[in-house]
Amino acid sequence: MFYTETIENEICVLNPDESKHCTSVLRHSNGDIVEVFSRSGEIHTAKIINDSKKNCVLNIIDTKPVYRRPEFLHVAIAPTKNIDRFEWFVEKAVEIGIEEITPIFSEHSERRVLNIERMEKIVISAMKQSMNLSFPQINQPVEFKDFIRLKSKETKCIACCEEKNISFAETIVSGKPTLTVIGPEGDFTKREVETAISKGFIPVSLGRSRLRTETAGMVSCTIFQCITGRFGAKN
Amino acid sequence: MFYTETIENEICVLNPDESKHCTSVLRHSNGDIVEVFSRSGEIHTAKIINDSKKNCVLNIIDTKPVYRRPEFLHVAIAPTKNIDRFEWFVEKAVEIGIEEITPIFSEHSERRVLNIERMEKIVISAMKQSMNLSFPQINQPVEFKDFIRLKSKETKCIACCEEKNISFAETIVSGKPTLTVIGPEGDFTKREVETAISKGFIPVSLGRSRLRTETAGMVSCTIFQCITGRFGAKN
Repeated sequence: MFYTETIENEICVLNPDESKHCTSVLRHSNGDIVEVFSRSGEIHTAKIINDSKKNCVLNIIDTKPVYRRPEFLHVAIAPTKNIDRFEWFVEKAVEIGIEEITPIFSEHSERRVLNIERMEKIVISAMKQSMNLSFPQINQPVEFKDFIRLKSKETKCIACCEEKNISFAETIVSGKPTLTVIGPEGDFTKREVETAISKGFIPVSLGRSRLRTETAGMVSCTIFQCITGRFGAKN
Repeated sequence: MFYTETIENEICVLNPDESKHCTSVLRHSNGDIVEVFSRSGEIHTAKIINDSKKNCVLNIIDTKPVYRRPEFLHVAIAPTKNIDRFEWFVEKAVEIGIEEITPIFSEHSERRVLNIERMEKIVISAMKQSMNLSFPQINQPVEFKDFIRLKSKETKCIACCEEKNISFAETIVSGKPTLTVIGPEGDFTKREVETAISKGFIPVSLGRSRLRTETAGMVSCTIFQCITGRFGAKN
């Protein structure tokens, strides 16, 4: 399975990384039939017509839509100081299922730079691995105080440590898009939480444990899958 | 919160790592009151009586049992070739909640050596971080073919890729210990799955996506928490 951003008419071109993987690693050559997915949410069956090592060209034979689950989860999450941990969250979120990721910077954020291009590479790799070929939207980072003011129709949750809060699992409404906001290692400030609540965010608990930021992100994705029945539980 | 393995009468001693963290990093000194947990499932309030940088000595003032959830989850999982990924699983499993971990080697295992001492260090660190102070049992690695022959009263599941299998979520029986076995990157062989089934293992699905080994492990822990109600969902 390859990824392409370049499709016109019935021709698609692989970038150098994908071309190298296609021709040098997997040793495909002219005439071979392969599958290619794109950001548009389609899978193409295509024949290689130029097995260039840098810009492999393919002729599309057939196209079908990718499976897209009906539910919608958006996770807004503070990038961790240790970038490995954040990349780990992005990879796992794609494996488990997610529709939108927004990196946010809040008062206690220890990281305020993020390479979105690198995040997208991780997304593509995880999509190929997991065969979840519906490309999630990866937004540019935004300040928390601006983010919570954005209008949206989602059920809006802010993950907080207090166990007395309603659980995230209980706030998920079948059929309604869900947004959950997860803070940095130092958590949100009291004022940030209060402001979010005033903007319609529900303070939710992710359970009894104190989870790391990236773990909270992954747990949110999994709880969402569990509650919406995608893990098969009879809810 | 510190960890100790050395308690006798009312005296406990911290090992060099813990002592250094206590006295050099956190700058505690004689007379300070700290909390210490041990493998036995207790938290001790203790006063520092010798603030040695290598072997800090404390006098226990009070002891209480740690919170231990009533459910029991045992995950037997093939260590991944990339050890970072396996260590992430161990860390996340402790954060989310787990009672027992058994590393297993199966036919397609790419890793056949594992430093259990290092795993335990990761466990201790994750316990402090998450405040899940009930020490999970970390077993020595065992061959899959021997492991599945062990007698146990657990509901026994083997994670398989076929979506037509019953979901792991549906096999969890309230009040009964659960064991789930997760294969390596190359999955279990057909014969291994058949042998496990003959020994009473239920083939289960963890959803539609093809999850990496460490992701499957963490998702199992999270689904278990979700279904047993520890994330607050009304099941």
